[in-house]
Amino acid sequence: MRKNPSGIKEIARRAGVHHSTVSRVLNAQTRSLVSGKVATDILHIAEALGYRRNSMAVGLKTSRSFTIGVIVPDLTNPVFPPIVRAVERTMGTEGYVTVLADTDNSMETERIVLDSLYSRQVDGLILATALLNDDIVAECRKRLVPFVLVNRTISGATATSVVTNDSYGIRLAVEHLVELGHRKLAYVGGPLNASTSKSRHEGFREAMTAHRLKADPRIMYECRSLTSDAGSTACQSLIQSKRRFTAIVAANDLLALGCYAALDAAGLKCPADVSVTGYNDMPFAEHFAPPLTTLRIPLTEMGNQAALLLLRKMRDPKTVLPSVQLQPSLVVRGSTAPPSRSR
Amino acid sequence: MRKNPSGIKEIARRAGVHHSTVSRVLNAQTRSLVSGKVATDILHIAEALGYRRNSMAVGLKTSRSFTIGVIVPDLTNPVFPPIVRAVERTMGTEGYVTVLADTDNSMETERIVLDSLYSRQVDGLILATALLNDDIVAECRKRLVPFVLVNRTISGATATSVVTNDSYGIRLAVEHLVELGHRKLAYVGGPLNASTSKSRHEGFREAMTAHRLKADPRIMYECRSLTSDAGSTACQSLIQSKRRFTAIVAANDLLALGCYAALDAAGLKCPADVSVTGYNDMPFAEHFAPPLTTLRIPLTEMGNQAALLLLRKMRDPKTVLPSVQLQPSLVVRGSTAPPSRSR
Repeated sequence: MRKNPSGIKEIARRAGVHHSTVSRVLNAQTRSLVSGKVATDILHIAEALGYRRNSMAVGLKTSRSFTIGVIVPDLTNPVFPPIVRAVERTMGTEGYVTVLADTDNSMETERIVLDSLYSRQVDGLILATALLNDDIVAECRKRLVPFVLVNRTISGATATSVVTNDSYGIRLAVEHLVELGHRKLAYVGGPLNASTSKSRHEGFREAMTAHRLKADPRIMYECRSLTSDAGSTACQSLIQSKRRFTAIVAANDLLALGCYAALDAAGLKCPADVSVTGYNDMPFAEHFAPPLTTLRIPLTEMGNQAALLLLRKMRDPKTVLPSVQLQPSLVVRGSTAPPSRSR
Repeated sequence: MRKNPSGIKEIARRAGVHHSTVSRVLNAQTRSLVSGKVATDILHIAEALGYRRNSMAVGLKTSRSFTIGVIVPDLTNPVFPPIVRAVERTMGTEGYVTVLADTDNSMETERIVLDSLYSRQVDGLILATALLNDDIVAECRKRLVPFVLVNRTISGATATSVVTNDSYGIRLAVEHLVELGHRKLAYVGGPLNASTSKSRHEGFREAMTAHRLKADPRIMYECRSLTSDAGSTACQSLIQSKRRFTAIVAANDLLALGCYAALDAAGLKCPADVSVTGYNDMPFAEHFAPPLTTLRIPLTEMGNQAALLLLRKMRDPKTVLPSVQLQPSLVVRGSTAPPSRSR
């Protein structure tokens, strides 16, 4: 590792300023305290000398690394990259580097990842992994790491989060299908230990009741994971159950994609035989065969808002910030149509 | 930050062993030197005491963080998550945490990201960002960070890399289209400063020549980025040029997806009017409308091989390791068909 024991002093000597001025300029947080011309000169000299802040040493002194971490549950779900990209861009304009870690839906991996990021002194965290009863959130609190939840929140919503109104979104999907004439709606949901899946599940039941329809538990599924494979397995069971249904409300787009596969394997056409709705409007949803009717959630806005809240928390860790709830909107595409007479 | 000044001594006292034994057990690299029973006891005591290695302090002494970094050029391209997932899993079994950084195709961001990862003492890097003439590779060498390139390599292939045979892959695409009866093949490629795009471009010209066909530069495009938008723009120009073509060979799946959009906007049907091939067989390519004929590259195997090579490099930084080249294979789906008579 490169050492800079006298780097700052040498820069100060060449620039003809006190070494504390150099320190101020090399720290993005305090740079504005030094006049523009002097700061520019110092940065040029630092660059010419190949000076790089030894962040480890700086970190030990100031506890600032200008790096934040984002933890996602499933890197292969295309819903997360746009959120992360927005975080990166917003944090980047404030001089922060974003590193990403993927837990592969494992709480054990999440703990190891959190340990690693914490030891490497990230200044803050954005967690897209929250479960309703979440040890990791407790851990972040104990360690006094500023953090913001994104997409999912915890039980009681007692942490600062940026989420969307999930039950409202599912209600839009149910209303759309009911307006098309569907009455027998199946539901393919995710694990109920995540706020998103729980709210969507409850939203489905509430919306059905509001339309004086029965949310039939015999055609409602709770998948173990939010993946295409899990959706396919659930839809297979649904088809094999021989119960009547003309539409499937899926709790996310990957589950919906799995339903496409199971319907196709059973010789059923979407939407002619069965309509399908998704949730998230993830990238590529409009390119699927058929293009997926789904709920659009503002992914970029979620990332931006989470980054802005985290910046505020890092500046003033004691501040209590209100959570942000964004609204989903229905995007109607080719996967929904009036029910066929024969079913 | 939590301090453990006497943590190891306290664990040693409770376990009734020398503190060097505790240190060995707490380091995954040396744990096997201690008998299983003793090691298990020590780990339990450490856990009960809430002991966590202060990696910063450990890092300063041993220069080991058990964290590696992966740098990708575009997190929103679904080709990278499966590679990263494979790296995570392989490194995870060896006790390493993987953190990911996304450069958003910016060399400036890449330099900042590299600085941050280096300062936080990652033990090694896997770069999916290499350009043919790449400053970052030179930078990694100067800093003596073990690294492996994945997917792309540098000019002269002088760094250890895991790549696929790109010119062979494009040849398979051209042969498939020629066998279907196509003679007028357009090419939509990526920026020629990346090895993948350059080899695919050359592969296209060579394959056309081998079939005594003309690789017509007037219907060959070099896009600035490997995105759906760039592919759409290139395909629009191609259509507006009024030159004859019955098939498009695209250098990656996102470019192909952009071609779908441009063809659709111009009222042309794929494959009835124009056949399209992609490259990568990225997740979701089989769900597109129409399902995409493409070259499958072994994404998981690429990630595994890159991780294994990096582990060997980190163990013995001076070792010279041969690069790995994997073979792509053609996956024929619905986007290719014999040419229509009318074109």
